[in-house]
Amino acid sequence: MSRRDDQTAGRDADPARLIHPGTPGLRPVTVTILEYDTSHLRERSVTRRGEIPAPALPPAVTWIAVDGIHDAGVIRSIGDIVGIHPLTLEDISNNHQRPKIEDYGDYLYLAVRMLSADGIGGFRSEQVSLVLGKGYVISFQEEPGDAFERIRERLRAGAGRLRSEGADYLFYALLDAIVDGYFAVIEVFGERIEAVEEEVVADPDQETLQAIYVLKRSLIALRRSVWPLRDVVAELERGESSLVREPTLVYLRDVYDHTIEVAETVETYRETMSGTLDVYLSSQSSRMNEIMKILTIIATIFIPLTFIAGVYGMNFAYMPELRHPWGYPAAIASMVAVAGTMLLYFKKKGWI
Amino acid sequence: MSRRDDQTAGRDADPARLIHPGTPGLRPVTVTILEYDTSHLRERSVTRRGEIPAPALPPAVTWIAVDGIHDAGVIRSIGDIVGIHPLTLEDISNNHQRPKIEDYGDYLYLAVRMLSADGIGGFRSEQVSLVLGKGYVISFQEEPGDAFERIRERLRAGAGRLRSEGADYLFYALLDAIVDGYFAVIEVFGERIEAVEEEVVADPDQETLQAIYVLKRSLIALRRSVWPLRDVVAELERGESSLVREPTLVYLRDVYDHTIEVAETVETYRETMSGTLDVYLSSQSSRMNEIMKILTIIATIFIPLTFIAGVYGMNFAYMPELRHPWGYPAAIASMVAVAGTMLLYFKKKGWI
Amino acid sequence: MSRRDDQTAGRDADPARLIHPGTPGLRPVTVTILEYDTSHLRERSVTRRGEIPAPALPPAVTWIAVDGIHDAGVIRSIGDIVGIHPLTLEDISNNHQRPKIEDYGDYLYLAVRMLSADGIGGFRSEQVSLVLGKGYVISFQEEPGDAFERIRERLRAGAGRLRSEGADYLFYALLDAIVDGYFAVIEVFGERIEAVEEEVVADPDQETLQAIYVLKRSLIALRRSVWPLRDVVAELERGESSLVREPTLVYLRDVYDHTIEVAETVETYRETMSGTLDVYLSSQSSRMNEIMKILTIIATIFIPLTFIAGVYGMNFAYMPELRHPWGYPAAIASMVAVAGTMLLYFKKKGWI
Amino acid sequence: MSRRDDQTAGRDADPARLIHPGTPGLRPVTVTILEYDTSHLRERSVTRRGEIPAPALPPAVTWIAVDGIHDAGVIRSIGDIVGIHPLTLEDISNNHQRPKIEDYGDYLYLAVRMLSADGIGGFRSEQVSLVLGKGYVISFQEEPGDAFERIRERLRAGAGRLRSEGADYLFYALLDAIVDGYFAVIEVFGERIEAVEEEVVADPDQETLQAIYVLKRSLIALRRSVWPLRDVVAELERGESSLVREPTLVYLRDVYDHTIEVAETVETYRETMSGTLDVYLSSQSSRMNEIMKILTIIATIFIPLTFIAGVYGMNFAYMPELRHPWGYPAAIASMVAVAGTMLLYFKKKGWI
Amino acid sequence: MSRRDDQTAGRDADPARLIHPGTPGLRPVTVTILEYDTSHLRERSVTRRGEIPAPALPPAVTWIAVDGIHDAGVIRSIGDIVGIHPLTLEDISNNHQRPKIEDYGDYLYLAVRMLSADGIGGFRSEQVSLVLGKGYVISFQEEPGDAFERIRERLRAGAGRLRSEGADYLFYALLDAIVDGYFAVIEVFGERIEAVEEEVVADPDQETLQAIYVLKRSLIALRRSVWPLRDVVAELERGESSLVREPTLVYLRDVYDHTIEVAETVETYRETMSGTLDVYLSSQSSRMNEIMKILTIIATIFIPLTFIAGVYGMNFAYMPELRHPWGYPAAIASMVAVAGTMLLYFKKKGWI
Repeated sequence: MSRRDDQTAGRDADPARLIHPGTPGLRPVTVTILEYDTSHLRERSVTRRGEIPAPALPPAVTWIAVDGIHDAGVIRSIGDIVGIHPLTLEDISNNHQRPKIEDYGDYLYLAVRMLSADGIGGFRSEQVSLVLGKGYVISFQEEPGDAFERIRERLRAGAGRLRSEGADYLFYALLDAIVDGYFAVIEVFGERIEAVEEEVVADPDQETLQAIYVLKRSLIALRRSVWPLRDVVAELERGESSLVREPTLVYLRDVYDHTIEVAETVETYRETMSGTLDVYLSSQSSRMNEIMKILTIIATIFIPLTFIAGVYGMNFAYMPELRHPWGYPAAIASMVAVAGTMLLYFKKKGWI
Repeated sequence: MSRRDDQTAGRDADPARLIHPGTPGLRPVTVTILEYDTSHLRERSVTRRGEIPAPALPPAVTWIAVDGIHDAGVIRSIGDIVGIHPLTLEDISNNHQRPKIEDYGDYLYLAVRMLSADGIGGFRSEQVSLVLGKGYVISFQEEPGDAFERIRERLRAGAGRLRSEGADYLFYALLDAIVDGYFAVIEVFGERIEAVEEEVVADPDQETLQAIYVLKRSLIALRRSVWPLRDVVAELERGESSLVREPTLVYLRDVYDHTIEVAETVETYRETMSGTLDVYLSSQSSRMNEIMKILTIIATIFIPLTFIAGVYGMNFAYMPELRHPWGYPAAIASMVAVAGTMLLYFKKKGWI
Repeated sequence: MSRRDDQTAGRDADPARLIHPGTPGLRPVTVTILEYDTSHLRERSVTRRGEIPAPALPPAVTWIAVDGIHDAGVIRSIGDIVGIHPLTLEDISNNHQRPKIEDYGDYLYLAVRMLSADGIGGFRSEQVSLVLGKGYVISFQEEPGDAFERIRERLRAGAGRLRSEGADYLFYALLDAIVDGYFAVIEVFGERIEAVEEEVVADPDQETLQAIYVLKRSLIALRRSVWPLRDVVAELERGESSLVREPTLVYLRDVYDHTIEVAETVETYRETMSGTLDVYLSSQSSRMNEIMKILTIIATIFIPLTFIAGVYGMNFAYMPELRHPWGYPAAIASMVAVAGTMLLYFKKKGWI
Repeated sequence: MSRRDDQTAGRDADPARLIHPGTPGLRPVTVTILEYDTSHLRERSVTRRGEIPAPALPPAVTWIAVDGIHDAGVIRSIGDIVGIHPLTLEDISNNHQRPKIEDYGDYLYLAVRMLSADGIGGFRSEQVSLVLGKGYVISFQEEPGDAFERIRERLRAGAGRLRSEGADYLFYALLDAIVDGYFAVIEVFGERIEAVEEEVVADPDQETLQAIYVLKRSLIALRRSVWPLRDVVAELERGESSLVREPTLVYLRDVYDHTIEVAETVETYRETMSGTLDVYLSSQSSRMNEIMKILTIIATIFIPLTFIAGVYGMNFAYMPELRHPWGYPAAIASMVAVAGTMLLYFKKKGWI
Repeated sequence: MSRRDDQTAGRDADPARLIHPGTPGLRPVTVTILEYDTSHLRERSVTRRGEIPAPALPPAVTWIAVDGIHDAGVIRSIGDIVGIHPLTLEDISNNHQRPKIEDYGDYLYLAVRMLSADGIGGFRSEQVSLVLGKGYVISFQEEPGDAFERIRERLRAGAGRLRSEGADYLFYALLDAIVDGYFAVIEVFGERIEAVEEEVVADPDQETLQAIYVLKRSLIALRRSVWPLRDVVAELERGESSLVREPTLVYLRDVYDHTIEVAETVETYRETMSGTLDVYLSSQSSRMNEIMKILTIIATIFIPLTFIAGVYGMNFAYMPELRHPWGYPAAIASMVAVAGTMLLYFKKKGWI
């Protein structure tokens, strides 16, 4: 019953209690209900708990969309209407729930993270719960997002497989919309990775390194969402629940392929970043080599010359060279000879 | 029968003998017995071995809580009453037991480590054994901790699922309380990791490195507790024991989810620390680069100038430049020219 | 329904819709139809959708080869004729499809990447879809390549196992031709790796490093094609589909062996490149050592000498050595002694 | 039939031949026979082959302990008496046998390595073979060790589970004694690792590095003994042999737990050594940084000063500063200013 | 049908065609036939295809040994006689075949690599194919080696298990002889690794590094032969083929143990080489440290001294120290003081 987030507050609580562990939800909860079959569609918004109706009987499909999971009362009301286990209600309220799927016989509970690019190079992550029962789907999320809006529009538009198939197909469509969001996020990562790679080749500095590590860490976080998602969809696709009909399985297999693709792309990105880091580090070390080379060339050329100059700067009374008319030119000549030898040596080494 | 800890003392001992391998327990053993059903609850503390009663018959539930596992006699007495295998008794006495679960048919034996934050940035780890039998749970621990106290309070408070369900639900509640402790410890680690990361970016020194390694090692130790715990709960949750009833399994699955989350967080922390170590090492090497750069700039600028000064410090009798009125200004000018060229070169290199 | 490539355009689309996500196909689609049995072979090219015939009845085999997957209409027409699921049609149109095999009962759908060396050191990668039904094989690819042309020639040539066996053998032959292309690509990689390795030993520079990383990344990409291919062929070879007859399985096992060999070679190449990178890095560091050695030798020899010269360049009024006739030779002698000692020391160290 | 050790001698030999591949055993072979049941115990030493008796009938238990496996004749004699397969006899003779267990129906053959601390910081490793048959256990080892002596004493002491249980319990007791030896060795490693870790922090030098690598290599060797041991005990504990009775399985499970603990400790030690190596390397690099810093500070402070001194050491005829009464103090002052600026810069950098 | 080696030539070929992809075999093919039972043995060499007889009926065993796999005709002739699948014939001809085992019902096909030390520190690798049928074994290899000669001699020698057992035992004996060759190769590696390790400690240079990498790469290649071999023998040992009788399985299990040992030794060698590489790299870096230390000591001692000398080498008219009788001794004394302070500092640092 206890999640990481309710460590501080409410430790002693009964396991089946409903407390939303996030920040207090000041926004009112919105419950939108869509009932449809091939020929009809009815859409309502409910603001008071008592107004939430029981789902229609199949073949009609009822989609109850709850925006705002901080209100434990609403969640419990819905739970009472369709008969949801207290632990599931608690999982729905928990917005740090690990992706998972649980088959309670009467209903399937699915918790996943919904990702979306935030437009400024990062991504938002939100907890979404889906409950698939006989003839109904209930979706729970905190922020009213537009990911599901497109499905609503397709439903309103009427004709199409979505209207003629059952609740399991709606369930699939919602899941598919969620997985689509992952592709958008991955694209954002792809662009950032490309930018960092160019920077590493062009003009790497300490900030580039920071950027690489931020990316690496984000990828670890992303992967932590993606891998369990993959497992969840794999379990769904195995088709062991009677709530998912045979023809829908092939669509779930399609979603599964997408999650695999996302997971593989994340792995590839991780390998890419490791490579980029290596390039950065090795370019650092190669820069160091160049610095050392320059220092060594300058120092080893001038140190002997300075020594020669020092010798003839000595004040000994008896230094015959100093009196000789050719002394000075000879000293300069010997300096040129030493410098030339050094330069030839470095040339042979391939340094200059 | 032989554990690592009794290598030195008592090697020849019979395998089924009971010796607590830790430090000698000077504290007296406390045995607290709670008997309850939906309507009644009776709580007693027992101080003498002979007073320990046989568990009540179901549907009543008896919880025998033993604080202090150093007294082999007490453990054996309880073992005799409910019929526990000598090897299990030995495992209970051993406070370095690896987490495990064993199904002896009549009872389930569970050994786990109970972790709790110690308030000063580290964590305490203690051996806890749980025995689940028909209508009773026996808990063994060395230090009387408060982790189970909250459950006792919920039991005393009366109404609630805990009072109406059987011994397996109590067993679950105790296990859940233990797993909760892991989250607290993980939070502590999270904070320490964050602190180290800030230090690495702001002002890393050799001590930061020490801190990173201490954390890495603690995480290895933590992981060694967490992974077998996960396996243990997974085995429980599979529901192969007749002592755990069907409705309780869903709660154990919940505990299993928590252990997975703990295990994943520990892995993420390990990856984070590896990244942090890389950042530290690379910042070291980048600092080295900077040092070298400064040395190289200063040395390569002044070494040629010093050489020029040296040349005109030579004491040759015939050095026409020395007599020339413009000699000195010319020498200074050539020095400025050399220094300027060098500076331009370094500017082009992007060093200054 | 949504693939990564249709993120931007057509997000709201119905899952079963057919949109080719690549660049708009300006080239007209070519459909080539081969119908054959042991004694007859008929070959046609179809340019208008309506002309595509239903496959002949077994034992005749029909091979419909579609070059150009950008025309959703053509794909749908063929799909309608032989009864292909909308999701499969979508997968066929998607030219970034992950390699996979799907058994729809009536037909087997296989998506793989076809690789071919591009003649300039790289490789081309193309999406190929194969559909195996009762008595027919349909192949879809974008670029009309010559990989399948050889099989066409063998069919035209007449006699041979290809003509006498069924559609599953043709399916095998096409798959085998695709896997052959991987060997060609691997050979190209082998040559490039060898070239880089020679460069690393002979004359490594920053470009060598770039080449190593480009190769490493290409190998990651290659591996991403190869590993799922291996899984796909493994699933085929298990022989769970009724469309693949027993005698053909042994040929598929042969193809499987080839994919294993490709996968292992790629792994070996990856390990080789890691080793090559290590050699590069360590040769960098050993070069640094050499630079430092030269600098140290020169500096430590001349710095003391220059100091001695400096001492006798001082202008103190009372420096008796300066007046002594042997002063100068003694100074020079002491310099030679210092330099000699240094050289001996370095010789002992094994530096010179 | 051929082991690595008989590569040089006896390659052509028949597979079922018995040749001890170690050093020639000069020590005579000792065979000690213990026959016991709950009430009686008889102990004999046998020196001639012909004297080895057939095992007593159950419920009596016969333990034949062979010290010295170099005498193929003795091993074959025993093999003939109880009916052991030639390949098993060969495995017994081979003292580099990989740990394994083989069920021949009539008997179980177990080969493990017996480890014991050698008292000087290392460990001894010896090949031990156990054969468990109906009513008898035969143990083979080269060196007469004391690990089994304690069991002999417990048997002689009489009462106890060991005397009342069957041959499988004796088999377990021997195996348990062997696994106990691993804990002793692990303790030795623990101490050496601790010593190296302290050295790394306090005063690391090249010898510390050597010590780290020696430990790492020893741990690889240790692990190579431990992992197969774990597998062997796991197979035993699964209880598929009819020679091991149900009640003994719980004891074998206990031994299995111990092997797991040994294996995990070895893994932890390996990780610890990797961390220690990293600390060593990074302390090396940090020491280098410090050296560079000192050099840079000294050089960059004095090089400009020396240049200034050099300028005023020039012998130009027209250098007005030289004549000026404040020339010298001004020069000194400018030197102090340069040095001060430098020191301030380094202070700002946090170097001094 | 196409292997990597026939990429260039014969791409279009029919899959079942026989072309040896290696260098053209100029050596004539030798076919040696051994027929034996407990009492008789007949040995023949065949030079013309037509002379190859059908295998004798069991219990007689026929061993057809083919030396030279470049002659597709011979292989096909034999294939026709005993009924071998075209794909198997192709695998036999391919001398870069990956180790594998295939059960065709009538016969077992086994392809492995035969290794042998080449006497100059490397090893030779050759493709060997074994076909086990009812009452016969056919062995194919290119080079006539002596590995099988010892078995021939044991057969000729008469009495022994080899003569009295069936074809499966001969098959085992041949496989065992092949695995023996691996031990010889491993021994060679062991010696080379030891030599490199001594070099790393004693006197490492760039060539040592090269040697380490050559060894690492050879070990990768070796491993690539060993791992599939292990899998192949494991499959054999599982005993699913009716061609291998129960009593022979225990011998195959013995061979399996040997392959495990080889595989583990290769892994240990790989780990050892990684450690050796680390020691090399760290000794490089420690050498660098020493170089830097020497440079720093010399430079930091003399640079200040030279500065002092420079100061008193200045030509200012008014420098009172220069006139003072104690000026020179005082300057020298201050130099000694500076040098002494430096030396004390370095001593404190533990550098000298």
